[in-house]
Amino acid sequence: MNLIHANIETMFNPETVAVIGASDNPSKLGFHVMKSLVNGGFPGKIIPVNPGSHKIWGLKAYRSINDYTARIDLAIVVIPAKLVPGVFTECAEKGVKGIVLITAGFKEIDDPAGATLHKKIADIVDAAGVAVIGPNTFGMINFHANLNASFTPEFSLLKKGKIALVSQSGGISHLLGFLAMRADARFSKIIGLGNRLNVDFAEIIDYLMDDSDTNVIMLYMEGIDHPNRFIKEVKKHKNQKPVIIYKTGNSEKSDQAAKSHTGSLAGKHEIYQGAFKQAGIIISENAESLLDTAKAFGSSEIPQGPGVAILSGQAGPALAACDVCEACGLKIVSFEQCTQQRINEYLPPLALRTNPVDMGPAWYNAPAQSAIIRAAMNDSNVNAILLLIMFASANANLLTDLSKFLTKFKQSKPIISCILAPPGIWDDDIRRLEESGALVNYPTPEQAAKTMAALWEYNKRNKVTGQVDRLKTENC
Amino acid sequence: MNLIHANIETMFNPETVAVIGASDNPSKLGFHVMKSLVNGGFPGKIIPVNPGSHKIWGLKAYRSINDYTARIDLAIVVIPAKLVPGVFTECAEKGVKGIVLITAGFKEIDDPAGATLHKKIADIVDAAGVAVIGPNTFGMINFHANLNASFTPEFSLLKKGKIALVSQSGGISHLLGFLAMRADARFSKIIGLGNRLNVDFAEIIDYLMDDSDTNVIMLYMEGIDHPNRFIKEVKKHKNQKPVIIYKTGNSEKSDQAAKSHTGSLAGKHEIYQGAFKQAGIIISENAESLLDTAKAFGSSEIPQGPGVAILSGQAGPALAACDVCEACGLKIVSFEQCTQQRINEYLPPLALRTNPVDMGPAWYNAPAQSAIIRAAMNDSNVNAILLLIMFASANANLLTDLSKFLTKFKQSKPIISCILAPPGIWDDDIRRLEESGALVNYPTPEQAAKTMAALWEYNKRNKVTGQVDRLKTENC
Repeated sequence: MNLIHANIETMFNPETVAVIGASDNPSKLGFHVMKSLVNGGFPGKIIPVNPGSHKIWGLKAYRSINDYTARIDLAIVVIPAKLVPGVFTECAEKGVKGIVLITAGFKEIDDPAGATLHKKIADIVDAAGVAVIGPNTFGMINFHANLNASFTPEFSLLKKGKIALVSQSGGISHLLGFLAMRADARFSKIIGLGNRLNVDFAEIIDYLMDDSDTNVIMLYMEGIDHPNRFIKEVKKHKNQKPVIIYKTGNSEKSDQAAKSHTGSLAGKHEIYQGAFKQAGIIISENAESLLDTAKAFGSSEIPQGPGVAILSGQAGPALAACDVCEACGLKIVSFEQCTQQRINEYLPPLALRTNPVDMGPAWYNAPAQSAIIRAAMNDSNVNAILLLIMFASANANLLTDLSKFLTKFKQSKPIISCILAPPGIWDDDIRRLEESGALVNYPTPEQAAKTMAALWEYNKRNKVTGQVDRLKTENC
Repeated sequence: MNLIHANIETMFNPETVAVIGASDNPSKLGFHVMKSLVNGGFPGKIIPVNPGSHKIWGLKAYRSINDYTARIDLAIVVIPAKLVPGVFTECAEKGVKGIVLITAGFKEIDDPAGATLHKKIADIVDAAGVAVIGPNTFGMINFHANLNASFTPEFSLLKKGKIALVSQSGGISHLLGFLAMRADARFSKIIGLGNRLNVDFAEIIDYLMDDSDTNVIMLYMEGIDHPNRFIKEVKKHKNQKPVIIYKTGNSEKSDQAAKSHTGSLAGKHEIYQGAFKQAGIIISENAESLLDTAKAFGSSEIPQGPGVAILSGQAGPALAACDVCEACGLKIVSFEQCTQQRINEYLPPLALRTNPVDMGPAWYNAPAQSAIIRAAMNDSNVNAILLLIMFASANANLLTDLSKFLTKFKQSKPIISCILAPPGIWDDDIRRLEESGALVNYPTPEQAAKTMAALWEYNKRNKVTGQVDRLKTENC
C-alpha cells in the first residue's frame, strides 16, 4: 500500500512518459493522447510506443518499452484489451511506477472473460506495486506539472489552481472541466478513476491529502466496492482538507446503469448520505453545485460562524439570497449599532438599510459602497458577506472603482459575490477580483448563498478554527 | 379595466414616445433612457422633454409635453417625485395612453407622505384610464417593436423571442436578462412592474395572454396586495399559455425586506404555493430554473406523457439525468422490442443499450447516433428525449454531422439536450440547432432533466393535448 502511495506520487510527477499505442492517426485515441502531452507542454521526455512506426508526432517511436533503455515513470496504455496483459508484464519488469490504462473491456462488460482479464492484469501490477489509474478512463491531468495524460487535449485550456477533481465518469469530468472554463474554476488535478484496478477513491484521497498543490478535493461517485475503506480514509484525514461529493445512482434505473458502467452497484442512497455526513464530507446535489462549492473552498476564507451580511445593489437579488441563507442554516444577523449608524450615513431612509442592505441609492457611489462593505466586515455579528451587484448602464464604472478598494482591503472573512453584467463588460474586473483573493463570484445570488452555506456547514461539522486575524474595528 | 387593457396594448406599441426628464448628462437616468430608445432602434418618434434644453441626444427638446402639438402614446417619466403629480395631470389631459414611471419615492418609503403622493397620482391616472408601469421601475422593453423604454440600453443586446418576463424587481430582471444573453434565451417583452400604480400582475397577465408575440409568461414576484385577483386572472386563461413563477420573500427577513422594497408583504409561502399550483402555474425555486423553464416553453414541444429516453454520449451524465427524472415524476421507460433491436445493431454489448443508453461506443459515428435517436423518437413508449453529449477531441466533428440530421428530422416530441464543449468550439452548432427548433440546450444534464420534468408537469396539470402528429414507425 505504501509502495502504491509512493508510485502514485511519481506517476503524477513523471520525468518520462511512454504512450503505448501512440498514433499519428486522428481516428485513434493514441493520437489524442500524444496531442495532450505535446500540446499540453509536458516538460519531460515523451516516448511514443507503436510497433508499426518509427516516428510519431515528430518523436522517435519505439516497438516496445523494452527498446527504450532508460527509465520510464509513467505509461499511458491505449491498445486493445487482449494486448494489455503482455504490456503490463513488460511495464512491471521495466520498473514503470504508474500506468494510465485508457483501454476498456474489463470487468464492466457482460462477458465473464472481462472479469477474468481484469483479475489477470490486476495480479500483474499488484505483485509489482505498479499504480494503475483505469481501466476505462480518459486519463488524468496534473496541471502543476503540465502533464495532460488524457485523450482530451482541451483540458489544458484550464488554469492551474487548488481543486482536485476525482471522478468515476469521464463524461462528468468533461462536463465539470468545460463548466470550469466558463466559471474560471481552477484545478490542481483531474483524475478519471475509471474502473479502479488498484487505485480507488481511498488510495487517491490518501495521496491528495498529502499533495501540497491541492487544498480541496471534489469527488464524483457512482458506486464503489469498498465504501467502508473509502469512508475510513476520509475520516483518517478529517479536518485536513475539505472533501465534497456528488453521487449519482440514486434511482432504480441509474443504480442498474451504474452497475453496467462501473462494475459496482451504486447502493442505497440514504446509507451513503449518512456515511458521508459522518465523515465530514460536504454533499452536493448536482454537478453545478459540486463545482460551485469546490471553487469557493479552493480560494475563499471559511466563515467562523453563521452570521451573514447581505449587501446588494438591488433589493430583489438580496431577497433571493435571503431565502436561501435562512433555508440553509445561515443567519441574516442584525448589525451592531455602530455599523448601522455608518450605513445610515450613506443610505437614505428610502432604502433597506438593515440586513439585507439595498445599496441601490449608492449605486453610482463606490466610496459609499466601500464604506458599507468595510463597516459590515468589521461588525462582530457578521462572519461572512454576500455581495450582489447587477450592472446597469448608469453604474458601468462602479466595479472598477470598487475593485480598487476590494483588492487592497485585506479581509479575513469570506466575501462571496454575484456580480453580473452583459458578457464582456465586467469580465476582466471580476477575474481580477477573484485572482486577488478578494472574493469568489457566481452567476446567481442563489448559487452565491448556497455556496456560503456549504462553507459554513463544513466549518460547523469539522470545527476548523483557522487563523482568523480579526480586523481592528476601525469604524466604531 | 378595458380601457387600461387597450392602453397597455398602445403603450407597448407606441408611435410617439416622450421622455420627461430626458438628459444629455450621463449621470442622469434620463440620459440612459434616451440611449435605450435611440440606440435600441425605436422606429417611432422620440420627444425629449426638459425645460432646460433645446436639444437632447441631437433631437429637438420640449419644455413640456404641451409644447408638442401632436399625439403622444407613451411617456417615460424620470423626474423627482414631487414633480410627478403635475406631469401626470398634463399627460392625462393630453391623452397619453401609457406612462412608464421610473421615479421612486412613493408608497415604498417610510414617510407617510410617500403613500399620500402615491394615492394622489393614482387618482389622476385612474380617472383618465392611463396605464402606468411603475413607479420605482427600470422600465420595460418590447423587443418586437424595438422599444427599449428602460434605463438599461444593454437590454437591447437580447434577441427577439417568445418569452415575456414580468418582474417585481429591477435587479432580478437585470440578472435574468444577463443570464439570458449567455443562455441565448429570447424575449418578447421584459416588464418591470415596480410598485404597481394601476398595472399589477393581474392586468399584465390579461394583456400578455392576448399578445401574439408571447407564448410563455415568466413571473418574478415578491409580494402583492391582491393575490386573489392575480390567481383569478391566471385561472381565467388556464391552458392558454404557460405561466412560470419564482417567488421570494419566503423567510422572515426577506418578507420584511419585501415589505420595504415593494410596499407589499410577501406573505405565507405555503399559501402562495398552494394557490399557484391550483391555478396551473409552474413553480421555479430559483432564478436559474425560472429562466431554464421559460426557455423550453418558449420553443419546445410539450411531452404528451412522462416517458423519457435518455440518449447519452457518456454514462455519467446519463446517470445524473436519470436521478433527476425519477425524482421529478418522469419515467425512464423500457423500449419497444423493435427499438431495442435497432439500438443493439449500433452498440456493442459492452455499452448501456437499454434506457438510459450510453452511445459512447458510437461517439465518432453520427449516422449510428442519428439512427438511435430516430428509433427512440419512433418508440411509442417514449414521449421525450434527453440528449447528452460531452465534447472530446476524438468526436470534435460529431455535432456538425449530427446537426444535419437533427435539423432535417422533424420531430413532434421534445428533445432537451445538454451538449457541452470548451467555449467557442460547438457554440455555433448549438445555436443553429436551437434556432432550427430541433432542441433546447442546457449546460448540465440535471438542468436538462429538470426542465423536461417541468414541461411534463405543466401538461399533466393543464392537460394540453396539442397537435401531436405521431411519426410513422419507420423502424419497425
